[in-house]
Amino acid sequence: MSPKITTELLKQLRQVMKNPRFVQEPVQAYIVPSGDAHQSEYIAPCDCRRAFISGFDGSAGTAIVTEQHAAMWTDGRYFLQAAHQMDSNWTLMKMGLKDTPTQEDWLVSVLPEGSKVGVDPFIIPADQWKRMSKALRSAGHDLVPVKENLIDTIWTDCPQRPCKPLITLDLSYTGVSWRDKIVALRSKMAERKVMWFVVTALDEVAWLFNLRGSDVEYNPVFFAYAVIGMNTIRLFIDGDRMMDPAVREHLQLDSTLEPEFKIQVLPYGSILSELQAVGAGLSPKEKVWLSDKASYALTEAIPKAYRYLTPYTPICIAKAVKNAAETEGMRRAHIKDAVALCELFNWLEKEVPKGTVTEIVASDKAEEFRSQQKDFVELSFATISSTGPNGAIIHYKPVPETNRTLSVNEIYLLDSGAQYKDGTTDVTRTMHFGTPSAYEKECFTYVLKGHIAVSAAIFPNGTKGHLLDSFARSALWDCGLDYLHGTGHGVGSFLNVHEGPCGISYKTFADEPLEAGMIVSDEPGYYEDGSFGIRIENVVLVIPAETKYNFKNRGSLTFEPLTLVPIQTKMIDVNLLTEKERAWVNEYHGQCRAVVGAELERQGRHEALRWLLRETEPLAPAP
Amino acid sequence: MSPKITTELLKQLRQVMKNPRFVQEPVQAYIVPSGDAHQSEYIAPCDCRRAFISGFDGSAGTAIVTEQHAAMWTDGRYFLQAAHQMDSNWTLMKMGLKDTPTQEDWLVSVLPEGSKVGVDPFIIPADQWKRMSKALRSAGHDLVPVKENLIDTIWTDCPQRPCKPLITLDLSYTGVSWRDKIVALRSKMAERKVMWFVVTALDEVAWLFNLRGSDVEYNPVFFAYAVIGMNTIRLFIDGDRMMDPAVREHLQLDSTLEPEFKIQVLPYGSILSELQAVGAGLSPKEKVWLSDKASYALTEAIPKAYRYLTPYTPICIAKAVKNAAETEGMRRAHIKDAVALCELFNWLEKEVPKGTVTEIVASDKAEEFRSQQKDFVELSFATISSTGPNGAIIHYKPVPETNRTLSVNEIYLLDSGAQYKDGTTDVTRTMHFGTPSAYEKECFTYVLKGHIAVSAAIFPNGTKGHLLDSFARSALWDCGLDYLHGTGHGVGSFLNVHEGPCGISYKTFADEPLEAGMIVSDEPGYYEDGSFGIRIENVVLVIPAETKYNFKNRGSLTFEPLTLVPIQTKMIDVNLLTEKERAWVNEYHGQCRAVVGAELERQGRHEALRWLLRETEPLAPAP
Repeated sequence: MSPKITTELLKQLRQVMKNPRFVQEPVQAYIVPSGDAHQSEYIAPCDCRRAFISGFDGSAGTAIVTEQHAAMWTDGRYFLQAAHQMDSNWTLMKMGLKDTPTQEDWLVSVLPEGSKVGVDPFIIPADQWKRMSKALRSAGHDLVPVKENLIDTIWTDCPQRPCKPLITLDLSYTGVSWRDKIVALRSKMAERKVMWFVVTALDEVAWLFNLRGSDVEYNPVFFAYAVIGMNTIRLFIDGDRMMDPAVREHLQLDSTLEPEFKIQVLPYGSILSELQAVGAGLSPKEKVWLSDKASYALTEAIPKAYRYLTPYTPICIAKAVKNAAETEGMRRAHIKDAVALCELFNWLEKEVPKGTVTEIVASDKAEEFRSQQKDFVELSFATISSTGPNGAIIHYKPVPETNRTLSVNEIYLLDSGAQYKDGTTDVTRTMHFGTPSAYEKECFTYVLKGHIAVSAAIFPNGTKGHLLDSFARSALWDCGLDYLHGTGHGVGSFLNVHEGPCGISYKTFADEPLEAGMIVSDEPGYYEDGSFGIRIENVVLVIPAETKYNFKNRGSLTFEPLTLVPIQTKMIDVNLLTEKERAWVNEYHGQCRAVVGAELERQGRHEALRWLLRETEPLAPAP
Repeated sequence: MSPKITTELLKQLRQVMKNPRFVQEPVQAYIVPSGDAHQSEYIAPCDCRRAFISGFDGSAGTAIVTEQHAAMWTDGRYFLQAAHQMDSNWTLMKMGLKDTPTQEDWLVSVLPEGSKVGVDPFIIPADQWKRMSKALRSAGHDLVPVKENLIDTIWTDCPQRPCKPLITLDLSYTGVSWRDKIVALRSKMAERKVMWFVVTALDEVAWLFNLRGSDVEYNPVFFAYAVIGMNTIRLFIDGDRMMDPAVREHLQLDSTLEPEFKIQVLPYGSILSELQAVGAGLSPKEKVWLSDKASYALTEAIPKAYRYLTPYTPICIAKAVKNAAETEGMRRAHIKDAVALCELFNWLEKEVPKGTVTEIVASDKAEEFRSQQKDFVELSFATISSTGPNGAIIHYKPVPETNRTLSVNEIYLLDSGAQYKDGTTDVTRTMHFGTPSAYEKECFTYVLKGHIAVSAAIFPNGTKGHLLDSFARSALWDCGLDYLHGTGHGVGSFLNVHEGPCGISYKTFADEPLEAGMIVSDEPGYYEDGSFGIRIENVVLVIPAETKYNFKNRGSLTFEPLTLVPIQTKMIDVNLLTEKERAWVNEYHGQCRAVVGAELERQGRHEALRWLLRETEPLAPAP
């Protein structure tokens, strides 16, 4: 992968930063955040402005360009990738390392006195604006909104904003109708005494209306906003997708409805002016509820005294706790996904020794097997198919320049998942098709111990996920090893593969407590730069636990793995496992056999079934 | 313990809340925080305003009195104590439980429209003021500073502010001279481009000048402020203690000194006017550094644009990392403290069966043995000497009304410590002088497993203490047990027994990373309301660890116990320990034997030595 040459682009950007056609006053720095106007993690090609200007296309990163410098902040998952993709115009700022300055501190250190720092007010979340603006102001600079996006002015071949057809989901998938979701939302609004709720996150719009789309790759969402009043529903969406009879029927657009459930459809681009009108018409005490991560532009549309901002919206919290229909859907999706991966690993075992399987071939084959499963829609993220040293690039995606051939001499790491109409999957397995070294097995076993420590953890109701993060690291830490990413993220139900408000990470503190029905990933890893990467990831469901004393009726929770794919026993050094850990592996593999075995049988996939049976042989005790 | 009757006092307070002699406009609510003007945790009798108005005298709590209500917020350590000490005028707000409203939310729910909420601006920290003020304003209320403390106006027999002699500490105790500390502080100030640093915390003043006092019980501090400029040093302190020749010599008050080390001594009460003068005389870009926990009054003395606020001051951070002289002092102090406790426990073992030892007798005896040790100054906090059900009151202090007799049928919990001129101790041991039940042993063993999990934890450099908190809980959680307090706090060196910026608690996130030389407590527990309490606490030193792979030269850390007091093996169910845990106990007891045994021998305390040898017999493996 050769870096993108950005000298000319940066020159152009620095010109428009001073061009009165685009900026009221010249800006001495311009911030290019990662997200889109909905603060999405995965974005449409037209929103990949940071990748356009820098070449770095990982899912997280912020670019800042000044007259002299260009700097990129990203986290441990992307240090290697960013370093590979960016040319020498760029300085990589490794977030999470002690000596890395914050964006604010860096700006203050490089800017001339009294500078203006520009940013697109639709792209920057209000909470970030506030923090950044305050820090800059206290150092004598100003953060200023630049209405026209400056990257767009130099991006001559910028793709169109997508506007694809919608999918309607019935009750068998969602468990709750959109009307009932609106009722529940309004009751939360009444509790907090707010009159309006602005839905800005794409997955929240999709979840609320039981609709899905494909405007953004991997995330089944569509570009839209919604504004919910106590008696009105406004949906801001473009294109002829509202002409689709199935969608009209689903949203009851042509039915005679109680007025409070009548959906008013408005153009996507009219959100700001409509919201400004709402803001202008508020009586005292009429509050408007927004996420504190909504864009600065939309937040500013509501006068400050009328805003009610929270880090997590009631939709975000409701969406995280899956109901029975959603949980059952997730189970079905994971069984199908396991079938596809048993097929894949069986196939790889035969093909890898021939030396013809590259990372891209393996990745395509995984997609092929998945697409054979019922209700398959698309992948849930770009497959990380990586062998040998590529495995140490935490969010690697194989491209022709880096595409490596799988061999019997290297570790292979596959982190992949799919969107099925009944659920979203995300699984990582680390395999060796030859004979792993003692060191590789040692590291793999520590990672496995960490995985089990989280998966089998028992904890009281009300515990926040971040408190479980160090369980995943303990075995690694004992030997002086660690990994520079969180241990788990929330997973949507046929929605975004990364969703809030829960997770398992040392980096957050403001996560909501885990509760039964939430779904998160459990994915510790270990990465040896230049050599190999190891990660073991299951998606797990939070369930009530049985404990001897049950926290004096406060209640106990634990996890149940939804992912049911064998963990390669060849990679395990059984001597390093405790008796309990060995029993966990055997019990897990027993589940894989019973549940996925039955489905393989049903689908007539006998060879993959034989592979599954062999791979799930119980581990014998250490000699 | 019978509750304090507060009906009349509350009536008086509600009167002064409307009395124009004290308030510009009537206040509908008045906040009585826990602290003093230095945001101290332990306070002088004249500052115990919250205890005066409510009866609740635990170390943490905030009272709010409105025209209709009186409510007290406190944390899990004090739920039982507060409930016992307060009469029915008071509502107890249990912090940390899900349904407990915040002070702000509660105020908004009970106050009539457009209310004024009063507070003493010297007592409320600036960060709390800001948060509270913002929340109240957004609900249409106002937080207002009430210059005269309203409690003081009704507290007719309020004691005088203490003003006791000072102790000077030479280099053999402190390792660094006050001049060198000023030099280091000024270099931190220069780094951040600030011209002034305001020292508001009492332990920071004491540490900076290598002085100690006894104005506040248990904390060897004295009432003072300091303002350090790049070329000036101002110390605000009252009384004739500056007449003491030893103090004058120590501070070189009568020597010819470079002007930048000349200390200007000013009256304690002049800090506000002096700081206002500093504030008024600032040129642009001249910043003043304050803790964001400094009082609102002092913070407001500096115009907003000139303030530089941080959660932890450079003194707080420097003070936390003990140098070799301090570490050696802490070791000596802990050996002496262990000698005293061996004597105590040996004595208790003989006396308890006679039925004559009450909690207070035991507590006094502990103090007596400690006071026999060299350089003993005072206790480091009120001894928690509690047996049976009293042990479940986490921060219990025996008083005549509750004083229970120790017996061979109940668990005894002793949490105690002392100030020696060379160091501060804090140790908890839980003992049974008869035959513990299987359930008591089970709970004790889980707590011990948690204690060991933290003490033996290995973690990379840069890890924050809060990430280790759940290690202490894991064994308890597995059985559905937990405890409602943090696992550890920073410990001062002949200073406050609780100090920042590090600790081990699920409640904080903003703690500074642990580094070698920091000292914290490790004190998991388990409390069965109405029956017993268990806690096992050592003070531990953060030290470099040796690990197989050393985090790629990032470095590894672990803990070394400074406390060397036997953990009662009679209470341990060896079947529940892993081999590693059993080895840890035996290794720890080996240390106690070698180090404390030698000191007992040296001091000729042969009976206590025999007790130590018996109590440190190695644990045999489970049958």
